[in-house]
Amino acid sequence: MSVNVAVVGATGAVGQEFLTVLAERNFPIKNLKLLASARSAGKTATFNGKEYLIEELTKDSFKDVQIALFSAGGSISKEFAPAAVSAGAVVVDNSSAFRMKEGVPLVVPEVNPEAIHKHNGVIANPNCSTIIMNVAVWPLYKVNKVKRVIVSTYQAVSGAGAWGLYELEAQQKAFAAGQPILKEKFPHQIFNNVFSHNSKVADNGYNEEENKMVLETRKIFGDPKIMITATCVRVPIPRAHSESINVEFERPITADQVRQILSKAPGIKIVDDPANNYFPMPLETSNQDLVYAGRIRQDISRDDGKGIDLFVSGDQIRKGAATNAVQIAERLV
Amino acid sequence: MSVNVAVVGATGAVGQEFLTVLAERNFPIKNLKLLASARSAGKTATFNGKEYLIEELTKDSFKDVQIALFSAGGSISKEFAPAAVSAGAVVVDNSSAFRMKEGVPLVVPEVNPEAIHKHNGVIANPNCSTIIMNVAVWPLYKVNKVKRVIVSTYQAVSGAGAWGLYELEAQQKAFAAGQPILKEKFPHQIFNNVFSHNSKVADNGYNEEENKMVLETRKIFGDPKIMITATCVRVPIPRAHSESINVEFERPITADQVRQILSKAPGIKIVDDPANNYFPMPLETSNQDLVYAGRIRQDISRDDGKGIDLFVSGDQIRKGAATNAVQIAERLV
Repeated sequence: MSVNVAVVGATGAVGQEFLTVLAERNFPIKNLKLLASARSAGKTATFNGKEYLIEELTKDSFKDVQIALFSAGGSISKEFAPAAVSAGAVVVDNSSAFRMKEGVPLVVPEVNPEAIHKHNGVIANPNCSTIIMNVAVWPLYKVNKVKRVIVSTYQAVSGAGAWGLYELEAQQKAFAAGQPILKEKFPHQIFNNVFSHNSKVADNGYNEEENKMVLETRKIFGDPKIMITATCVRVPIPRAHSESINVEFERPITADQVRQILSKAPGIKIVDDPANNYFPMPLETSNQDLVYAGRIRQDISRDDGKGIDLFVSGDQIRKGAATNAVQIAERLV
Repeated sequence: MSVNVAVVGATGAVGQEFLTVLAERNFPIKNLKLLASARSAGKTATFNGKEYLIEELTKDSFKDVQIALFSAGGSISKEFAPAAVSAGAVVVDNSSAFRMKEGVPLVVPEVNPEAIHKHNGVIANPNCSTIIMNVAVWPLYKVNKVKRVIVSTYQAVSGAGAWGLYELEAQQKAFAAGQPILKEKFPHQIFNNVFSHNSKVADNGYNEEENKMVLETRKIFGDPKIMITATCVRVPIPRAHSESINVEFERPITADQVRQILSKAPGIKIVDDPANNYFPMPLETSNQDLVYAGRIRQDISRDDGKGIDLFVSGDQIRKGAATNAVQIAERLV
């Protein structure tokens, strides 16, 4: 069964990746509609070797569309998703607009695929850092309930959008040419620097990205009591987010047990070779769909055997966004 | 009172910084002797605007030397520090050779200055990541005992030596010129990448850098029971290490209390401005001596009020090495 698919935000970093992933996975597309702002309308994009005209997104764009993949920011989703649903489409939304709304499934297919079918027209795709963490922590949670997670991230610039990548590259090239390093959209120079994630800091002292990791994980796991603290940090790399994760379990667990569980879990690859100092790295996790997990070891800051430290890395544009959304759409058709 | 000072490893990253810091702080030097391997002997280095000939390090190098600052690696320290001590010098050693040895004080002057005077000829300078963490955690520990620390680091390439910086820069320039990116001494490409710290992984699954942070902190704090787990990671920046630190206290504590304690603590600067998303960054902590602390917030993964998250950054060649050693030497004279 083929379906009519619309991609909203077709010119963005995630929108472009939607096209790559849909083609790679042979998604059963009858008609493909590429939608973007008036500014991008009239440009073209390539899908499966064929050129498609990008049309301006309007509330009338969704006639006969069955699946609409949105990734054009929260305000666009809020404005246009209802029109898509009215026209009969199911929206898979990559923005944060509906994620925490009751009645909207928030889905990582490796974790809670059953939630997909409880939708009322909109299914939300979680935050990228949340997805990458959840793919690694959920298989463990199922075997030995996770009580607490302490996570620190190493996030790529393209998580902020395609402009993040342009800004890093411009600064890299300016440095090499001995020219002044200009900062444009990021609040601070990212080249040769590291800074706290560039999202608004809420009253609890956590920034939006960190609060998403906490609240979204609770919804996806269906466990409002799991305790999480996150520190989200940008690092000067183009792509793929990494996370240093400390996990506290209900019962004792060993590093070998964790390795065994994760080696059979979906969406994960174990890269854990201490002898060669070879562990998950964003350079290797970019442009592919698996979450790499390594540095798996007993937490030596506890004497009850209930702690594990690990380090994970995954492509935040693919599994952290486009691939996860397309996996959801695959289960819809 | 002026003293005769020898710098061992005068051509290295820390050795060069010794000269800068000694000059900046007007260290009372009578005669300065610069020592290095035969390969560097005959070259010159500048101190206080004056050129000094670098001499070859031998066991006879320490006649009349009163203070010897060593930073040429553990094997050089093991071989030559005894000769310096025999000649009557006090050695302040930046290598890991003697740090955990009984009878050798391991000192962060902001934490345990009293230990300096218990030396038997050698005083050890702690690991850079340890020093930066300890400067921030100790003032809190004194007020409300710290039971457990979970730390993830963001470490600069120059922590590996001056060659780390050359390697990053060479890769940055190759990228900008469209040339192949060559990896030389690091086990993996560092440009546009992040990798687990390039030190040997021990049997407990932790690498040397991580085990140093645990064991050295216990010795410096004089608390063999403080529980610590660390994940040490290299990021593609030239200088200054940052650390995401989760602290568990014996009793409840608030973010405001932490801010107040640290604002009065020696060697720390609070940089904690959520409204402007402005927090400690290596770009700003490079080439100065303070440890910057920010992102100070209650740990929302606990409901007993006993947790705090914070993010710190400091120059690992200055406070993490040269400055700390010179501060020790200052207290000796």
